Amino acid sequence: MTDAEAMAAALALSEDVRGTTSPNPPVGAVIVDGGGAVVGRGATRPPGGPHAEVMALREAGERARGGTAYVTLEPCAHRGRTPPCAQALLDVGIATVRYAVADPNPPAAGGADLLRAAGVDVAGGLLADDVAGGPLRAWLHSVRTGRPHVTWKYAATLDGRVAAADGTSRWISGPVSRAEVHRIRAAADAVVAGTGTVLADDAWLTVRDADGGLADRRPLRVVVGTRGIPETARVLDDAAPTVHLRTRDPRDVLTDLAERGVVDVLLEGGPTLAGAFAEAGVIDRIVGYVAPALLGAGPTALGAAGVSTITEAHRWRVEGVTMSGDDVRITAVPAAGEGGP
Amino acid sequence: MTDAEAMAAALALSEDVRGTTSPNPPVGAVIVDGGGAVVGRGATRPPGGPHAEVMALREAGERARGGTAYVTLEPCAHRGRTPPCAQALLDVGIATVRYAVADPNPPAAGGADLLRAAGVDVAGGLLADDVAGGPLRAWLHSVRTGRPHVTWKYAATLDGRVAAADGTSRWISGPVSRAEVHRIRAAADAVVAGTGTVLADDAWLTVRDADGGLADRRPLRVVVGTRGIPETARVLDDAAPTVHLRTRDPRDVLTDLAERGVVDVLLEGGPTLAGAFAEAGVIDRIVGYVAPALLGAGPTALGAAGVSTITEAHRWRVEGVTMSGDDVRITAVPAAGEGGP
Repeated sequence: MTDAEAMAAALALSEDVRGTTSPNPPVGAVIVDGGGAVVGRGATRPPGGPHAEVMALREAGERARGGTAYVTLEPCAHRGRTPPCAQALLDVGIATVRYAVADPNPPAAGGADLLRAAGVDVAGGLLADDVAGGPLRAWLHSVRTGRPHVTWKYAATLDGRVAAADGTSRWISGPVSRAEVHRIRAAADAVVAGTGTVLADDAWLTVRDADGGLADRRPLRVVVGTRGIPETARVLDDAAPTVHLRTRDPRDVLTDLAERGVVDVLLEGGPTLAGAFAEAGVIDRIVGYVAPALLGAGPTALGAAGVSTITEAHRWRVEGVTMSGDDVRITAVPAAGEGGP
Repeated sequence: MTDAEAMAAALALSEDVRGTTSPNPPVGAVIVDGGGAVVGRGATRPPGGPHAEVMALREAGERARGGTAYVTLEPCAHRGRTPPCAQALLDVGIATVRYAVADPNPPAAGGADLLRAAGVDVAGGLLADDVAGGPLRAWLHSVRTGRPHVTWKYAATLDGRVAAADGTSRWISGPVSRAEVHRIRAAADAVVAGTGTVLADDAWLTVRDADGGLADRRPLRVVVGTRGIPETARVLDDAAPTVHLRTRDPRDVLTDLAERGVVDVLLEGGPTLAGAFAEAGVIDRIVGYVAPALLGAGPTALGAAGVSTITEAHRWRVEGVTMSGDDVRITAVPAAGEGGP
């Protein structure tokens, strides 16, 4: 197993726990013994539980001595609710540590130095871009900016409609895209929608599995807007926790969610709320599903976003384009100079 | 040079003459001598001029004897304004013929049989999909359906806007996409827009080269709609021929254009006209440029298309997705069962 393969395995472990670790980062760790065999695997447990390194070390036991630890984030050096991971690695006699991304969080940083000072062979940067752009993306963003990372998801036709003239929208996008949206929801800490969407569609905002049943992951459902919602609304059932934030200001929403430990937000609309987020410059990524259909009438994905003429357009950069079943999936990030914390 | 390489060269030659041959097909031909050297290249000349095979044979002269002809379309067997190409190939003593697509046009078909009967080694199908989906696409469509092939082109933002709230649209898409649109125009026989677009944007509908100057190709400019357009409109200048069709019915438009020998139509909007074409089921391909920008307000690409509820949506199939500079380029064709001649 190469270094990159071992780190890729750690990355996959961290991907599996996205949505369960906030406000802590979803980290993965793999321990390889001196003979090159994988002897331990771990990922961050929910807040208050052990970190990834500790989970991997528990599985490895004495076989970790003299081995190599692959961790997606620099092992922490501080004692929070759990003992520092760098010390745990030293205690078991690990010889080598490879990590992907350095810890930017001042209280936790310094793990690499601590290990190095104790004679461990330490190096960072392995698969750093994959980890920083993947499982740790939202957490790194929240450490840097002090607010949660926001992904805006929409599904529209080629002509930009999110529903037909009569409001019907089942289904704009295909089954592959819809299943993917549930996987994205599962990895989020909170799913946000406006009162308009909740009232018009009786949106449930839950995560469903491949069979359509309720999945184990239950990200916080967040309804935003000053209008009331009926007690019978599906979003208020006990399928997942729900909070109704009676504001129209996206920054107030994100401040509130940050205080609740939310790091990774999925914004699902509707147009009015998405427009407000775009105007406030607090959308950090767009995931758009473009379905090969034409409607010629009906609502569009984004409402008023503070743009009155073309030179004021919010400019983005396409990060990736792939097919998603029969749909086109476009991901985009703010162009240089756009948006802000 | 392999068979596929020789046919690819013939395909490229035919691509260069798209937009200059209608109502005849844009065909390419390459003659390879017995030693494998390319000794002749040709492509269809404008109507009344020689076909591709004859052009290639002229270059090859006596060197064609015993050689192989690669032609994108089965050599014709009929005498139209020019002598049959199959006979010309026989006269020079060609030994082998490879063609891509069989001629579906009853009066012209039979060239392969004629050659074979004379002892020539003949086979079709080489790069057939590339040719049938490429340079011969529009012509094959017009032979099959009796009406021109229509490509609808639009450029919109991620949120489906083709202009900002104040009508400004320079520029939604980037320079790479805009240059590509001029190449698409150059390959078309006619560029169609509604009176609304002509009146609102004073659209010129000409082909410009990379420097912004007027290109040699001057496809017919077609203005559709019952409203009058001022004599000073740019579309009425002498940069290219123009016709104003005072109808709102797409089928009338296509019947008129077919009578003018138009095979390949580029529909450039605006929304009302595009919606009418979509509703009539006479859009054969969509080329959409999706620019990574958000506007939140402004007109959309497609107006009323006869759809009032989601189950009536016009369904398409994505044919290809690529980056075009910073934009996403999506091409789509009608889904099985959609549209019609």
